[in-house]
Order: sequence, then structure tokens, then C-alpha cells
Amino acid sequence: MKLPTTLPAWHQLQALADAPVPHLRELLAEPGRATRLTHSAAGITLDASRQRVTPAIEQALAALAGQADLAAQREAMFRGDAINTTEDRPVLHVALRGDPLHTGPWGHAVQAEVQRELARVCDFADALAAGAVKGHSDQPITDVVNIGIGGSDLGPRMAADALAHLTDPAVPGPRVHFVSNPDAWALHSVLRGLDPARTLLVVSSKTFTTQETLTNAASAQRWLTDGGCPADRLHRHLVAITASPAQSARLGYPAERTFLFWDWVGGRYSVWSALGLALAIAIGAANFRDFLAGARAMDEHFRQAPLPQNLPVLMALHGIWNRNFLRLPTHLIVPYASRLARFTPFVQQMDMESNGKHTHLDGTPATVDTGPIVWGGLGIDGQHAYFQLVHQGRHTVPVDFIGVQNEDTPLPLAATHHAVVNLNLRAQAEAMARGRSLEDTRAQLLKDGLSAAQAQALAGHRSFDGNIPSHVLWLDRLDPQRLGALIALYEHKVFTQAAIWRINAYDQWGVELGKTMAKAMEKAATAS
Amino acid sequence: MKLPTTLPAWHQLQALADAPVPHLRELLAEPGRATRLTHSAAGITLDASRQRVTPAIEQALAALAGQADLAAQREAMFRGDAINTTEDRPVLHVALRGDPLHTGPWGHAVQAEVQRELARVCDFADALAAGAVKGHSDQPITDVVNIGIGGSDLGPRMAADALAHLTDPAVPGPRVHFVSNPDAWALHSVLRGLDPARTLLVVSSKTFTTQETLTNAASAQRWLTDGGCPADRLHRHLVAITASPAQSARLGYPAERTFLFWDWVGGRYSVWSALGLALAIAIGAANFRDFLAGARAMDEHFRQAPLPQNLPVLMALHGIWNRNFLRLPTHLIVPYASRLARFTPFVQQMDMESNGKHTHLDGTPATVDTGPIVWGGLGIDGQHAYFQLVHQGRHTVPVDFIGVQNEDTPLPLAATHHAVVNLNLRAQAEAMARGRSLEDTRAQLLKDGLSAAQAQALAGHRSFDGNIPSHVLWLDRLDPQRLGALIALYEHKVFTQAAIWRINAYDQWGVELGKTMAKAMEKAATAS
Repeated sequence: MKLPTTLPAWHQLQALADAPVPHLRELLAEPGRATRLTHSAAGITLDASRQRVTPAIEQALAALAGQADLAAQREAMFRGDAINTTEDRPVLHVALRGDPLHTGPWGHAVQAEVQRELARVCDFADALAAGAVKGHSDQPITDVVNIGIGGSDLGPRMAADALAHLTDPAVPGPRVHFVSNPDAWALHSVLRGLDPARTLLVVSSKTFTTQETLTNAASAQRWLTDGGCPADRLHRHLVAITASPAQSARLGYPAERTFLFWDWVGGRYSVWSALGLALAIAIGAANFRDFLAGARAMDEHFRQAPLPQNLPVLMALHGIWNRNFLRLPTHLIVPYASRLARFTPFVQQMDMESNGKHTHLDGTPATVDTGPIVWGGLGIDGQHAYFQLVHQGRHTVPVDFIGVQNEDTPLPLAATHHAVVNLNLRAQAEAMARGRSLEDTRAQLLKDGLSAAQAQALAGHRSFDGNIPSHVLWLDRLDPQRLGALIALYEHKVFTQAAIWRINAYDQWGVELGKTMAKAMEKAATAS
Repeated sequence: MKLPTTLPAWHQLQALADAPVPHLRELLAEPGRATRLTHSAAGITLDASRQRVTPAIEQALAALAGQADLAAQREAMFRGDAINTTEDRPVLHVALRGDPLHTGPWGHAVQAEVQRELARVCDFADALAAGAVKGHSDQPITDVVNIGIGGSDLGPRMAADALAHLTDPAVPGPRVHFVSNPDAWALHSVLRGLDPARTLLVVSSKTFTTQETLTNAASAQRWLTDGGCPADRLHRHLVAITASPAQSARLGYPAERTFLFWDWVGGRYSVWSALGLALAIAIGAANFRDFLAGARAMDEHFRQAPLPQNLPVLMALHGIWNRNFLRLPTHLIVPYASRLARFTPFVQQMDMESNGKHTHLDGTPATVDTGPIVWGGLGIDGQHAYFQLVHQGRHTVPVDFIGVQNEDTPLPLAATHHAVVNLNLRAQAEAMARGRSLEDTRAQLLKDGLSAAQAQALAGHRSFDGNIPSHVLWLDRLDPQRLGALIALYEHKVFTQAAIWRINAYDQWGVELGKTMAKAMEKAATAS
């Protein structure tokens, strides 16, 4: 196994980081820089010109990808090799969005299972939309409650929010709700507005043993029976989504209402599978298929585009430069479209649960820093909150700005709103890159009419170091295709970093100890 | 000015940090530790036994507070000295929750203004609850839309969520909605469900020049007039909350519907002022006064309790130990009650906008690291997402766990839910502190039936370093008093850290450059 520190490019990058890198103010003056560092794919444009990289650094990063055998590792994933070594499984979320008409590198068996289950999901979403799914008293289902946590919640919930404009509240068709947390209030505050006779529970758990989800499911079933549903008709209100159908069957979930995925789909990569049912219901089956097609377009780009134009690879390499060589421990993600409010928590899970690891693939302690702490939220709200620290705190925080070029919200003044939003995004990227020196600040304060003494006293407080690296991602528009492509972009970024760091991005043993402790405490409490 | 690095205790702490500090597994074995490090005030209990401190470190931290003149600085705030030096203003959010019957150290003038405006806020909330506030066609107001951003949004929105159980959806009385982001979708998605004839806009801005808020307000007014409100009756649907009443008057907001606060209230400390109007409407005036009383109880504790039992001081000192001596750059806040979902973003703003500074009070560059990056979200959801990195990533992240001891959600199985939630909180705090060594992991795997080779291969992947410091905060219950006390606890923690670091926690010049850049870009675009 080629550990990153054994590669010549790693040492070359270390030498480049030890030498002074020019301030972004200077880097941005380089002719042709924006063109060289701006690339598009699948309806998304990446402007990487504000990363703290020079052509020499870019070349060394590309060499690192080559020396780490990125291309071969990528093909191993698409081919279905067991790259999740600690669980001895392939990692095939890419197959979930494969071309329905052409079998991908994963082969016929996987292809057939995926397409069969996708058809079931789409048929069921269509039936719900048509009012053809009925509750215990033969009234049509009007509300769907998705009960799941982590990967069984974040993906479909984020995407349903992001595409909320596709759900017309004036058109009948089930409304979709999400409950993840086992705190009783989370469930109660959703159920109290619903009619049990018209409500369907979609219970999502890969193992169907997740304690939080089963607690919520049991409580919701109690609400159905307390609300008048006879026990022998409860099955009309239940759907299971799982990779363990034997387990869900034991709990009384009917086979014809059980949708499957497989052990080769990680929870945090599962929105493309039957776990996306709630999303398919919210936006309709046709839009759900478009969402898969958008991800597929990014998959094809990732497999085929040369490294210097490959969006996920570029983002991954800049991330490695920031994390391992500039030694920046966190990474800020700030969408500027309010429907993307849950995108940051979604990527937070995807990235941190995948690459928050302390061992290489062979189980030896990691010799390099791995995944950063991913945090953030909506950009304009952040400008009025934690951006203060980003501009003037004792941290340097690499940023991903995410904007939408074309919007058409039905408000008379929508164009004004949209101009404010995108102007702010552009201004923040520039302000963070360039900053304002102490000298320029003092001069500005004098120009504003302050006395020399006042300008001297305030210049420190009002200057900005700048030199904060950022990516700007522009979606042509916020639609199912672009959203699918955006998610796939981050998935492949995370894959690329793990491939170079030689860690397993697809297990999550770190969740184990808390569960073990909780079980031990429960046992001790019961025994005493 | 006594910079922290000039204090003997700072050097003593540095020496203590340079020597090995025992692992938390060993520290937790110390007899009497839990008692010594657990303290209560105002309905909140702090368990600090899982901080990486020894008695010697605790003493040096207490000495640091003494040498930094914390007590004198605290009294200067309560007395109304102009401790916000760059803007030459006092900082008196504590006066907003002062005892209505006894004037505090801030004096009679402030006391009188505060109580007069509080009475106006409560009267207006009562009138709305009684259906006595009417729209243009004399129908009672049923919906209130709070339009504000940053400090004009996060506080009342967080608190209204946290106390949502006090709003009975079956009892008539206005529902409260919040819009902050200027993305048109944010406003549209709220307004499309409302009736213009019955909707009141509460426009909140300290300066009443905030571009995002004025954009949303203009668009919402257009929705009112498009929806049938005659221009000369628009004022019936408008409320302003501001420290700049001349500015709101210029924009047509009537004086009798303008609620005031003052330049000595920072936006992020303003939920106690008229800016809490939306909260007072949501929970009722009596509950709002209880919320103030809870904060007052914490103020009294902060002023009077000896350092070793003073909750905000303890939390601040442990934070300084973690940030400046253990060199941990981030801080994770994870509430376990789902109604506290917005508490983390709220504290994120409060802490990072206050202490994300790079200069001391005198304008010289900071000689020590200042505020950490604050991040997080609901704990149980986090367990299924980013906790992986916290347990096994290449970071050490100090954590605040926040739990609620007594809950009474009206669900038949509520007790089961609550047991799951609190068991998980306790298990995570223990797991993070203790970890599981490579040797113990290997032994466990062998016990579980794995072969020696398998155990060897997996032990690294499944071991946990532990030694992650945490605070556990328990609220007796989630009610207005405890919520008020919890917020005040964090406010005083932030104050204490700023007092020791000698930075100004009450300005926010870091938001300036982005605004300046946006204006310049707008001007350039208009000119071209």
C-alpha cells in the first residue's frame, strides 16, 4: 500500500508549503488565472481561482493524484471491488444512478436488482400521487412520515427541501414529513397535525435494529392504533426501507411494502436507493429519475475528464493542500440559496463520517491528517453571525460558496432578491481573498474623516488579513439534475481524498463505542 | 492593560500544559472528583468532571481569573461603563432582565427606559393574543412574520422553537413565522400559506438600514398591497423594532407600532429587549417575563457565586485551557432536546461574533488565540453523522452536552423516548472521555470470536483514543426560566473569556469588509 508520505509529490508539496506562498491578492493578479482554474460539468461551474495555489502547486497536486493511483482506485470502485475492506464489501452507490438502458462496470446482477427496486419505488410514488394508496378506512393517504436517522434522514430531507418548489401545495398529493430524533417532541410535533386514517409511516433503517428509529416507529404505530386503526389493518399504514428484510418482516412489515437496498450502499450514500422514497414521493417519480440522471452525469465526468478539469478531483486536491500542507483543520460550506439550508449538515455527515478516520486501510495509525471538520450553513445568515470570526478571528477557514445562477421564485420582486443574494456571495469571496491591510485601513479611516489618533486606534480593529481560500460553485439552476450532480460532486471529492490518504471512507466504527457504552449502562441500570 | 501573557498564572498554565496531563480515564478515577466539579445554579447543573484538568490546573485557572481582574471587569459591565471601547458604548443586556422592582447598578435612567418598553411589548403581545389587533379589513391578526437577520432573528427564533410546547395549536392566538434570508424562496414559502388581511409584519433591524431585511420587508409589503391592503391602511400591518426610530419613521413605520431598543444592546444580546417581541407573542407575555427572570437568576449567580462554583466562569476557564493550552481550535455544542435544535447556531453567533477577534482592546494584534470555532447540532442526530470524526478523526473536539432532566411530552410512550435520549447523552460523554485502547479492543474482538489475525487487522480500526473533554449541562426542565438562564450562562462565559483575553466582545468590524465590497461591486455594475 502506497502511503501518501512515501510519494515524491507529497514531499514536493511539503517543500512548496515550507516556502512562502504569495498572498491571494497577488495570486489573483496572475493573467489567465480565472480561466485556468474555472471548469464546468453537469450544469455546475467551479471557480477555484481563490485557492492558495500556484502553477507549481497545481502540478504537484496533480502528480500526487497520479502517484496515488487514483485512476485505478476509481475504476475499482465502479467495477465493484470490495474497497470497503474492513467490512469486505463493494461500494456501489454509483450503480444506483446508472443508465437504466446500459449496464455499467458493476455488471448485470447489480444492474438488474437496482432497476427492479427503482421501478417499485417509482410505481409506489406514482400510486400515492394518484391517491390510490388507502388507509385502514379506505381514505387516501395524504401525509407520509419518514422515520429514520443519519443516512436514513439527512439525504431525502435535504433534497426534499432543496426541491421544495417542485411540490405545489395547491395540488393534492401526499405531503412528506421527517422525524429523526427520538426525543418525543420531534415525533409529537409532527403527528399532532395529522390524521391517523390518512397517514403512512415510512420506516427507514439499513439494519432495522436502529434503536432511535424503532422507538419512533413503535410510538407512531401506537398513535395509529390509538387513533382508531384496527391492529389487523395496521400494515396498510406501514412501509419499510431496509437492507435487512428478514428483520423488518419479524416486526410485522409486509413484504409487498418493503423496499430494499443492499449492504454495498452506505447510509450516507443511500439517497439514490429506495431510501430516497420520501423524496420520490415529494417531487414525483419523473423528477426523482432526473435527480439520478444528474448524479450520473457527474459520475461520467469524474470517470472521464482529465485531472486539470475534473471538478471532484480539483476540489479534493485543494482540500488536501489546505488540510495537510497549509494545516487548516476545518472546512466551511455556505450555500446562498435558502432551499439548500440542509446541504451543509448533509455534506458534514458524508465527509466527516467517511474521512474522520485515524487508521490507514491496513489498520496502522494514520501518518497524515485525514478529514476536516465540516461546518457552516446558509451564507447570508452566516454573514450576520459567524463570518466575523472567519474574517477576523485567529483561524483560517477554507470556504465553499454555493450559488444558483438562475432563479424564478414567483414573487414580484424576486429579481431584486436574487441580485442581493448573488452580489453578497461574490463580495464575500472577494473580501475573504483580498482582505484589507492595516495601511489601507488607516488610509480609508483618514479619508472617512477620522483624526490621525482615531485612525491609529481603530485601524487594527478594522483591518482584515484576507488570504482565505475558497471555491465558488455555481449551479445553473436549482433543479433535480443539478442537485444530483452537486451531491455526486462531493461524494467523489470525499472518495478522492480517501484514496490519497489510504483510508476506508466506507466504514464507521466510530459510532460503535457510544452504542456499546449505552447498552452496558442500560444493562447496569436494569440489573441494579 | 494587563495582557494575558503578562500574568504569572498564564505561564504557570503553560508549564502545566507542557507536562503530561493524565488521560481522562485516570482523572475520572480520582475520589471526590464528580462532587468537586459539579455545581448548580438557576435550575442548571454543570458536570465538569470530564474536563482535562487536575486540581493544580484548576487552581492556576482560578488564579488567572483573579490576576485578570475579572471581578472588576464584571462590575464595570453591570455598572454601565463603556466597555465596548471601539464604539464607546456601555454593554447592558443585563439591564434588560433586571428586577422590575429594584434598580440595578446601571441606574435609574436605563431602568426606566427598559421597563417602559418592556411594558409596551407585553401589552402588545397581550392585545394580539386577545384578537384585539386588526388588519386593514378589521379582521383580527392571526399570523405574525418576523423579518430580521442575525441578532434580529436567531434569538427569538431559537427561543420560540425551544418553548414551542407553550404554544398550544388548538388555542387561537397568532402563529409566529420567521424570515431572515433575502433569497426570495425564504419569504415566498412563508407568505404563500398566509392571508394578507390577517398578517402582521414585524420588521427588526437595529439600524433599520440592513439591506437583506429591507429587501424582505419591501417584498412583503408588496404582497400585502397586491393582496388587497389599501396603501393608507398598510400601517395596520407593520411593526418596527429598532434602535433607530428616525430611520424606521422615514420608511413609513408608525411611531405607536415602533418598539425601541438602544445602542448599548448588541444584536446578538438583544432577545431580552423589544427584539424579543415575536417570542413574547409566541409564548405569551407572562412566559416572556419568566424568561427574563431566569436570565436574571443567572446574572445574580455570575455576580455573587465564588469562582470555584461559578458556572459561567468555570465554563470560560475550561474553554481557555482547551483553546490556549491544549490548543484545540473548535468547540462542539450538542443539545439532546430536539426543541433546542437552534441553540447551537444561536451560541455560534454569540460566541464567534463576540470573540472572533484578532486585536486586543488597544488595537494591537492579539498575542493569544481568541474564540474557537463553535459548531454542532442535535446530539442524537450527530451520533449518526459527524460523531464518527469526533471519536476517530485526527482532531480533539471539546464538547458541551446539553440535556433536560424532566420532560412531559404528551405521547403515551414519552418515558421510553426520554430514557433513550438521556442514556445516549450519558453514554457519549463517557465514551468520549474513556475511549477504548488498542489492547482492550483486540481483547474484545477475540472475546467476540474473531481469529487472532482478524482481531489484529481490525483492532486499529475499532479502537478509540478517548480523552475528549466535555461539559454536561442538565436543565431541570425546559421552561422559560431555565432557557433564560442557559442563554445568560453562555453570555457570561463569552464575557469572561473576552475579559481574560482583553478583547472587545461587543463590536463586529469583521462584518464590514463584505458590505463595503458589495457596495463597491454594486456601484461598479451600475456604472458599467
